[in-house]
Amino acid sequence: MTKKLIGIDLGGTSIKFGILTLDGEVQEKWAIETNILEDGKHIVPDIVASLKHRLELYGLTKDDFVGIGMGSPGAVDRDKKNVTGAFNLNWAHTEEVGSVIEAELGIPFAIDNDANVAALGERWVGAGANNPDVVFVTLGTGVGGGVIADGNLIHGVAGAGGEIGHIIVEPEDGFACTCGNDGCLETVASATGVVRVARKLAESYEGDSSIKAAIDNGEAVSSKDIFEAAASGDKFADSIVEKVSYYLGLATANISNILNPDSIVIGGGVSAAGEFLRSRVEKYFLKYTFPQVRQSTKVKIAELGNDAGIIGAASLASQFAE
Amino acid sequence: MTKKLIGIDLGGTSIKFGILTLDGEVQEKWAIETNILEDGKHIVPDIVASLKHRLELYGLTKDDFVGIGMGSPGAVDRDKKNVTGAFNLNWAHTEEVGSVIEAELGIPFAIDNDANVAALGERWVGAGANNPDVVFVTLGTGVGGGVIADGNLIHGVAGAGGEIGHIIVEPEDGFACTCGNDGCLETVASATGVVRVARKLAESYEGDSSIKAAIDNGEAVSSKDIFEAAASGDKFADSIVEKVSYYLGLATANISNILNPDSIVIGGGVSAAGEFLRSRVEKYFLKYTFPQVRQSTKVKIAELGNDAGIIGAASLASQFAE
Repeated sequence: MTKKLIGIDLGGTSIKFGILTLDGEVQEKWAIETNILEDGKHIVPDIVASLKHRLELYGLTKDDFVGIGMGSPGAVDRDKKNVTGAFNLNWAHTEEVGSVIEAELGIPFAIDNDANVAALGERWVGAGANNPDVVFVTLGTGVGGGVIADGNLIHGVAGAGGEIGHIIVEPEDGFACTCGNDGCLETVASATGVVRVARKLAESYEGDSSIKAAIDNGEAVSSKDIFEAAASGDKFADSIVEKVSYYLGLATANISNILNPDSIVIGGGVSAAGEFLRSRVEKYFLKYTFPQVRQSTKVKIAELGNDAGIIGAASLASQFAE
Repeated sequence: MTKKLIGIDLGGTSIKFGILTLDGEVQEKWAIETNILEDGKHIVPDIVASLKHRLELYGLTKDDFVGIGMGSPGAVDRDKKNVTGAFNLNWAHTEEVGSVIEAELGIPFAIDNDANVAALGERWVGAGANNPDVVFVTLGTGVGGGVIADGNLIHGVAGAGGEIGHIIVEPEDGFACTCGNDGCLETVASATGVVRVARKLAESYEGDSSIKAAIDNGEAVSSKDIFEAAASGDKFADSIVEKVSYYLGLATANISNILNPDSIVIGGGVSAAGEFLRSRVEKYFLKYTFPQVRQSTKVKIAELGNDAGIIGAASLASQFAE
């Protein structure tokens, strides 16, 4: 029988699991709630229990699997297979993950950072089309990313490779970022960043706009509201999308001038705006890319949605295949 | 006997040759003039003749060598081992290089772009200290570069990886670049770029300065003149170095936010300014890097000078070692 892969996507709200073929096809998937109580000490035992339960349910044993892969928040030590400072899991200190799961399940285990793992997933069976050079940018609560160059996920010397959200796009008058710098891409292109740009532009906009009115009235406005209003013809909302697209186009163009990947794949919640966002970003991307890069690197929207995490995690485990 | 490597650095003025150990030590080196007459048709035969002559002189045969590596200007096809559009060699069309040299010498041959090859050299035995993640930026007539990530030279999907000179550093009001875009790093940090920045700043500078006076009088001013005047206390020249360093600091910080290399190595003629330039660039680099990157990625000045080309070229040939 052909062996399978297990992918685990560990998040602050839920832990997603998948059983996949060696070709990246999801055969089974399920999720459990993340119990972050008591310094998150239940998380690893809960993962072990859920895996054992499901393997029994499906009549599978350790011999049916090539390996287990996991994407985790926090600082991941890939060699020691542990995680440090994953604050949304209440793991302030170092948590042993791989050694426990390997001992309990008897299956080889690999782990990497969650944004990197999502990049691997999109590259493997998503918009990246298994190309050796793909850069993934995720626009969510923050802006993250993963760089795959010449077939390798690039971690860099201290594991901070792929910090796409902290590319400086406004060097002189940017918004303050949680990282301590000013003008990071994350401050203008995350879900909250889009709203931040809206507030700034609202100060000088004169004209009719439901979004401008909501901001001025102190009502809650989301990036989704802004993209929807722009798509419906709200000129103020449109100017926000334009500005955000400028920042994303500049950043993705410069990434591409450095790496000339096959594609830049944009994912995460904000990317739900789809072609409306992609085409705007591409306009600035084309303006700022070197001619040879302009002709070869493509801007795409992610295809895997929530499954990118388990698929990318499973791809980590394929390293154990003969 | 231990085998050796041959490295060839093909340029528009001279062709440099080196015989190196497998550890990258240069044992012999020589150079010949590049004869670009008659569409550069003498270049490859001249290389073959020079190699045969020297091998005989040193009493060496093809069996003494693992391989030959070459760095070339123009668009290099690494698989077909040919070069297209190397205009400073008068090679407008495709020139067969590797097939001829391999047939004449009987030694395996590898070729890559000259900026990439210089990056390999600096990474191997220069400032890169053989680290798997090194980015090389060369400030000469133009601005070029090479990206080595996870041990691999990154060519990208169309071979335009490492176009560091075409990172956009002035998105809204930049100088026109030869590539057709505006605001590229090359327009402000190449030898001519530094002078371009000087002319722009001279328009609004009021005060005593030999550089400002020379520009206003229409005299020839070089980037070397500007760095020397700045080091001697010329305030106007200092403001030029400051502005150029800002652009280089921003670009190298963003490269590092994406890749987190062990080091960014600055080479080329402009880098002769040494620590005076490096420390200025580093000031802006530190301002614009993500905290983890700031603590781990270093800004260095290249160490190999003119030998980077032959050393990097020789490193290409080490792929043929068992």
